[in-house]
Amino acid sequence: MADVFFLAAVNEARLGLAEGGVPIGSVLVLDGVIVGRGHNQRVQQGSVVLHAEMAALEDAGRLSAAEYRRSTLYTTLSPCAMCTGAALLYGIPRVVVGENRTFLGREDLLAQGGVAVEVLDDEACVELMTTFIATDPDLWNEDIGE
Amino acid sequence: MADVFFLAAVNEARLGLAEGGVPIGSVLVLDGVIVGRGHNQRVQQGSVVLHAEMAALEDAGRLSAAEYRRSTLYTTLSPCAMCTGAALLYGIPRVVVGENRTFLGREDLLAQGGVAVEVLDDEACVELMTTFIATDPDLWNEDIGE
Repeated sequence: MADVFFLAAVNEARLGLAEGGVPIGSVLVLDGVIVGRGHNQRVQQGSVVLHAEMAALEDAGRLSAAEYRRSTLYTTLSPCAMCTGAALLYGIPRVVVGENRTFLGREDLLAQGGVAVEVLDDEACVELMTTFIATDPDLWNEDIGE
Repeated sequence: MADVFFLAAVNEARLGLAEGGVPIGSVLVLDGVIVGRGHNQRVQQGSVVLHAEMAALEDAGRLSAAEYRRSTLYTTLSPCAMCTGAALLYGIPRVVVGENRTFLGREDLLAQGGVAVEVLDDEACVELMTTFIATDPDLWNEDIGE
């Protein structure tokens, strides 16, 4: 059965694509409820910090440490160093990742930090990123600092 | 001689304090020019992602990988995991830190990533943070996910 939270993250990625942006989406789930959602804002807001995961965290607003520690971060793509660092800062215990075939982020650091990382290897996410990277490699490289 | 870039970061921290915020400031310097500046926006904007370093990166806007790789990030306080991750993502080669006595961030990860970290052990920065932490420990703990 597809996870409704993961599907919400994929929906965010598709919203980003429809806006001409980087098609990566994320949601933050606390106690079984989506409390934050977002997608990459590099094109839309000219943002270099609002990767999808950061946008979802920002959308959730100021939570307590206890709340972060009961939360799960869903993202369509393996989290980069920045988003990994944000998860570590706030002590988010679990990260569900759509795929890490088109980009392998810092899952190693998440694991070192005791974060449970679950990679779904989702075909829809792979397809979204494969098409995007082939279409606009410069934008993609900029987003990952390359 | 006090570094004019570092003093600009301290000035950002003081602006944050004057606004009732977390007194941490940062500037991003590229080819001898400040291209981004900012201070922690937790109180002012209710932001959980705009730590000082992130605010400076956001203020600088979309830079090329080549530009990030010629830049230096100045910050009044040792960078947390999130800000460390942002520096690693963008390949910033040098980070100048005001102090790490009141909070030791992830300088270990910066060093592992090949980033040159210079800690100034600046008394003014220590004083800013010591007073702030004593005055509003809850806000401070929230900012570092504790």
